[in-house]
Amino acid sequence: MLEKILEILYQNQNKHILPDEIASTLGINENEVKKAIQTLEDDGYTLEFTPNSGYKLKKSPNLLLPYEIKNNLETDYIGHEIYYFEEVDSTNNVAKKLAEDGAAEGTIVIAETQTRGRGRRGKTWLSPTGGVWMSIILRPNIPPAEAPQLTLMTGVAAAETLKEECGLNVGIKWPNDILIGSKKVCGILTEANAKFSTLDYVVVGIGIDANVDPEIFPSEVRKGATSLKMELNKEIKGPLLVQKFLKRFESTYNSFKEGNFPEILNEWRKLSKTIGSDVEVRKQLGKVVKGEAIGITQNGALILELEDGSLRKVISGECLHVKK
Amino acid sequence: MLEKILEILYQNQNKHILPDEIASTLGINENEVKKAIQTLEDDGYTLEFTPNSGYKLKKSPNLLLPYEIKNNLETDYIGHEIYYFEEVDSTNNVAKKLAEDGAAEGTIVIAETQTRGRGRRGKTWLSPTGGVWMSIILRPNIPPAEAPQLTLMTGVAAAETLKEECGLNVGIKWPNDILIGSKKVCGILTEANAKFSTLDYVVVGIGIDANVDPEIFPSEVRKGATSLKMELNKEIKGPLLVQKFLKRFESTYNSFKEGNFPEILNEWRKLSKTIGSDVEVRKQLGKVVKGEAIGITQNGALILELEDGSLRKVISGECLHVKK
Repeated sequence: MLEKILEILYQNQNKHILPDEIASTLGINENEVKKAIQTLEDDGYTLEFTPNSGYKLKKSPNLLLPYEIKNNLETDYIGHEIYYFEEVDSTNNVAKKLAEDGAAEGTIVIAETQTRGRGRRGKTWLSPTGGVWMSIILRPNIPPAEAPQLTLMTGVAAAETLKEECGLNVGIKWPNDILIGSKKVCGILTEANAKFSTLDYVVVGIGIDANVDPEIFPSEVRKGATSLKMELNKEIKGPLLVQKFLKRFESTYNSFKEGNFPEILNEWRKLSKTIGSDVEVRKQLGKVVKGEAIGITQNGALILELEDGSLRKVISGECLHVKK
Repeated sequence: MLEKILEILYQNQNKHILPDEIASTLGINENEVKKAIQTLEDDGYTLEFTPNSGYKLKKSPNLLLPYEIKNNLETDYIGHEIYYFEEVDSTNNVAKKLAEDGAAEGTIVIAETQTRGRGRRGKTWLSPTGGVWMSIILRPNIPPAEAPQLTLMTGVAAAETLKEECGLNVGIKWPNDILIGSKKVCGILTEANAKFSTLDYVVVGIGIDANVDPEIFPSEVRKGATSLKMELNKEIKGPLLVQKFLKRFESTYNSFKEGNFPEILNEWRKLSKTIGSDVEVRKQLGKVVKGEAIGITQNGALILELEDGSLRKVISGECLHVKK
């Protein structure tokens, strides 16, 4: 109901609209309209009201409110169920619980800020207000070994969204960081749950430094991070970005389910900044592998050519691009 | 002189021009003009002549004549020296002899048809009239082991020419075939000569099925070959194609000499149709390696992931893309 009222207000942004007109359009009573308007105001919307001409929307908060995201969302199932939090420990944690409880494929969890955002390899992921912190519940019918493909697929969808919708020259650092230049603007954390030999669910977490001011990051993070706001020199509309991303994510995921991962991986290769670079991959227990990244396999393993010409398949690790 | 007269005739294609006007523009006498016009007519140009108003160019032959190629050629050194043949055994053979005799970097050998065109691995390369059969002499200051990089570099220059100038959706099949769809339209044969540990010269041979009618090929060639004329449904201007290619080749080669091979290889990766495909590579003595092509090294070796997950570096061979 809220998204429908919001839609009417957006459609009439240049004029006032009477509550009984809204009510009759939606087939509800005026009291319900007034209650909904009160909710919008509580959520940060500014409305002008005169008894003679009714409401006019003056200003929207740039928040990731579900009815903002659902308003004109062009997807078939991704983002049709939205769990929204002003603050949450981690959207992935909530999404995993929801998935355990049977939440449908496409359900998303989104928050303005995370208090315990997690990155890969147990790292903390700083998630201040202004960013997009979101998890998507998926239930693909694939063997557990192929779950890493969803990370690469999500990277392609995220990179292409930022490229096509924001006009940014982005690249992907293996396995799952979206970079602008050499600075990270988006990260992905995929967590899968398998029962026996089949995947039960996958939670794809995605964090985008949308309107984050990198100044607020500690200095060691700041030098490697940027935000869309900083790159574009303007505040971007969070809900619109989410809509664009969900639309592209859905079409990429549909293509994935139709067996087109090889084509998606080729897109990943084209977007990759790692392939063709000299890299150091830090593995567990302080082990480091150095070489030139020359390819990636279907399962997402990076192939390095070491100095002696031998090849090494690297399944996971922290990848650094190094100067020649 | 011929290219200057031709340039004047092209500039005046809508009107007649008197021989003495041509003569005075070029600072030569009228007899020299008439002799040159005779040569043009012998080469297949059709000119209209009236004693009162002079010459007017009616029709050019679509031949790869040096003065056609040099007319408005936008390069600094590639193609400034051109050896032209209506028919030759192999442009690479002639180029190698010229290189032995000290021909300058950038010298090209070009022919309307080759009687003994060669492909890789000793194969015959059919070179009928209508194609562009050309060799370029290079003298790069690189170790012999890096010569294969010039094949990849040439592939990028050729593919980008066909993509940008002809608007064709081309791809590269490792190591050096330019494809449209799954059909070959262009091949490259690089031959290097090293004295001791330094390269003396490299001859880059390139064959483009420009205005070739694939119908004339034997049936086993025909099903895997196409031509620009067939794809574009019109005859293309050979000299213009050569000019566009030489310009792009020169800028790519200059970039190569400045140490930017890694960037060129990344372009190759983007254009590659082999990476991400299942392939069979036929090696000498009938050996076949099957796997998924997942990457390429700086030295042009293809990396295959075999069915058991192991990696194999393939230096050379005949590559077939196979259906999954």
